[in-house]
Amino acid sequence: MHQNSMYRSLLLPDLRVMLSENDEAGLSEFCDALHPAVSAEVLEELESREAWRVLTHCDVRRQAEIFEFLDHPQQMMLVDVVERKELSKLIEAMSADERVDVLSKMDPGHVENLLPLMAHAERTDIRKLLSYPENSAGSIMTTDYASLNEGIVASEALEQLRHQAPDSETIYYVYIVDEGRRLRGIISLRELILSKPGTPISNIMNRDVISVRVDDDQESVAHELARFDFIAIPVVDNQNRLVGIVTHDDVIDVLQEEAQEDAYRAGAVQPMQGSYLTLPVLTISWNRGIWLVALLGAALMTAAVLNHYQSVSTSFVWMISFLPLVLASGGNAGTQSATLIIRAIAVEDLDKSDLFRLMKREILTATILGTTLMLLAFFGSLMFLSWSEASVLALTVFLVVVLGSINGLVFPLIFRRLGMDPALMSNPLIASLSDLIGVFIYFNAAVWLLAEQKA
Amino acid sequence: MHQNSMYRSLLLPDLRVMLSENDEAGLSEFCDALHPAVSAEVLEELESREAWRVLTHCDVRRQAEIFEFLDHPQQMMLVDVVERKELSKLIEAMSADERVDVLSKMDPGHVENLLPLMAHAERTDIRKLLSYPENSAGSIMTTDYASLNEGIVASEALEQLRHQAPDSETIYYVYIVDEGRRLRGIISLRELILSKPGTPISNIMNRDVISVRVDDDQESVAHELARFDFIAIPVVDNQNRLVGIVTHDDVIDVLQEEAQEDAYRAGAVQPMQGSYLTLPVLTISWNRGIWLVALLGAALMTAAVLNHYQSVSTSFVWMISFLPLVLASGGNAGTQSATLIIRAIAVEDLDKSDLFRLMKREILTATILGTTLMLLAFFGSLMFLSWSEASVLALTVFLVVVLGSINGLVFPLIFRRLGMDPALMSNPLIASLSDLIGVFIYFNAAVWLLAEQKA
Repeated sequence: MHQNSMYRSLLLPDLRVMLSENDEAGLSEFCDALHPAVSAEVLEELESREAWRVLTHCDVRRQAEIFEFLDHPQQMMLVDVVERKELSKLIEAMSADERVDVLSKMDPGHVENLLPLMAHAERTDIRKLLSYPENSAGSIMTTDYASLNEGIVASEALEQLRHQAPDSETIYYVYIVDEGRRLRGIISLRELILSKPGTPISNIMNRDVISVRVDDDQESVAHELARFDFIAIPVVDNQNRLVGIVTHDDVIDVLQEEAQEDAYRAGAVQPMQGSYLTLPVLTISWNRGIWLVALLGAALMTAAVLNHYQSVSTSFVWMISFLPLVLASGGNAGTQSATLIIRAIAVEDLDKSDLFRLMKREILTATILGTTLMLLAFFGSLMFLSWSEASVLALTVFLVVVLGSINGLVFPLIFRRLGMDPALMSNPLIASLSDLIGVFIYFNAAVWLLAEQKA
Repeated sequence: MHQNSMYRSLLLPDLRVMLSENDEAGLSEFCDALHPAVSAEVLEELESREAWRVLTHCDVRRQAEIFEFLDHPQQMMLVDVVERKELSKLIEAMSADERVDVLSKMDPGHVENLLPLMAHAERTDIRKLLSYPENSAGSIMTTDYASLNEGIVASEALEQLRHQAPDSETIYYVYIVDEGRRLRGIISLRELILSKPGTPISNIMNRDVISVRVDDDQESVAHELARFDFIAIPVVDNQNRLVGIVTHDDVIDVLQEEAQEDAYRAGAVQPMQGSYLTLPVLTISWNRGIWLVALLGAALMTAAVLNHYQSVSTSFVWMISFLPLVLASGGNAGTQSATLIIRAIAVEDLDKSDLFRLMKREILTATILGTTLMLLAFFGSLMFLSWSEASVLALTVFLVVVLGSINGLVFPLIFRRLGMDPALMSNPLIASLSDLIGVFIYFNAAVWLLAEQKA
């Protein structure tokens, strides 16, 4: 069966028929024949009770696999309709990281009701994982990793691995720990099957293990794994004891989430989880509204400054026509440099010596851009303006482009220095700040250069 | 040795000393003791000839591994200093996808000089991979995959896999092909080592293989792999013949590249590859300048429209002070809805029925936001304006927020419909379009509501 998403629409009617005819055999086949990711996508189109009816035809392991691929909102809706005992079994069967993800989003009272129904070991594992702060390595890691002790040979290692396989998220990397669970080395399954059966694993293991700390930020974990092209990266506590692993698929999720957040921030939308298609309108309105209101506040300040220059604008009526152009030029240049620096902060390690170089390069770039726009604005405006008026405009454009660019570079860096997320400096916010600078330069340039004309 | 990036600065002076003392043993150890990603990061700090001197102390396989982790610009600089024969050996030792990546960036004449020095099989492979269009699955896939024929048992499969391991990028997924190389099934190494030695692989293989086509776009390949949490995804031609695989690390690269491009587009910066810290200032200026000039053109149109309303603005001088506020409100609302729809297009499958729903939801959201900003603008402006003036302003703010939002939703969708990248609709471009609408509404509202005051 082909499983591309275009086929989802073909599977759904079949499934609906099976449900209405109570076709047990068909529903069981639906559970097993498809990749769980595909089953999950089809189930997302059903009402939660119907989706659960389908899932009751799967064995609990498969149930858990399909459930893991559902969207978070869909998971939460299912959690509400499934009976407590069945839900606890489902959650028990999930992988350690996925289930904690679900539990951390549930109502804490509901979680406390479920935990007593689970086995002691699972319960302890869940409580432990739930205790790590959001967005830390601990919050995205799984405890389902394969580990071995040092004093065995390759064939024994393979044999032990076979036993661990069903409960491990990956067995392609095997971690070697001592009796205190301190991380001693790592062997890939590839190295293991290439070794002679009698080789001690201490001879083949790689002792130079690259690991992350359990309280590291999830983004830095993602970047470490990406940097080394790993399938998984081990997570240790402050005594170098192995506490979990973060796998490549979790890193992809973190990177996608991060890209979404950054895009929202740049567009002055407070980040929110969930689909734009299904999130409540009030949530979207709130997450847009708080920024729009803040930006309106900034615009009122610009209005107050402009009000102050009212006498100038009545003397030089032509200035009004070009006011949006002046403000847009500064805002656009600022948006660009803010975009570049925010991305550079996200992707590269910037140190102090870089900052000085960046500033020098930005001033050079801004001068080139400012000069270009100055000339274009000058000649472009000559059809409406006199030479002297066009000069005021051109000079202003040059200055707002240069100052806007510097502004766009400096504000994210200040935010970062203050320990805030530089990405809070959204494109509209940079534009608002540039508006204030723009108004100030524009009217002062006019007063200064055209004073005698006024008189 | 600890390998976090903070230690890079400690390794560099050591390496410089080894080079100046020509410490052969130390340089060899540098090649072998560190993860190649770490060695690469340290080498990036050296001048290319020095970096190559270090690499001559590594065996050619290690050379290739370290070289693969270097930045593209660094790779290009090395390519220029390394002697032709040595370079061909290095490139031959690289993995199939990485070397094509390098060759596709090199001067074609240089490539034609190198190819005759390589083995026939490698040469054919390179020519084949070089022929796939940029950003296609073919351009990022590797031909170093493990494959087996159907008619063998598990123990034979493992044995054959041991032979293929040194030349395969991953052996964790093994692809089963028929005599025509058509893709028949897939087995994970995990399943293979869990099977009894005598089991025919046709009994354990998964026949329902999820694959991508060689001409699929790299972003859709990335999303497919991410959707199924795969380590690798097979790539087939239009006859379902296996031609390569794309691995998780390449997908992470694609996702990171994509996030960077999207952020640049949103900020009206033409996407460019390479670090903001080291790209030539002229490249950065050009990639910003083309957008600034286009946006200046749009702003000149706004100026022309405003010029048309000059008589209105001289009658109602108060309007000038609030012009930036009106324009910013429309632009900000438009930026937000454009951000949301561009992300939704990137992340979700939108079909026609979704569009209608999105439009309805956007109008509702925009009405909520427009009403909020209308009230705030009304009361916020009363300190400068009369009741009737504040009413004109408030009505305008309501309309620009609603129309700006619809504008931000509709333009990316039109771009998509026309087969263009919706992300071309950058935040500043949306703001420019909103400016035109804003000016039009503002002055017409004033003329309409305040006509008697003027007279």
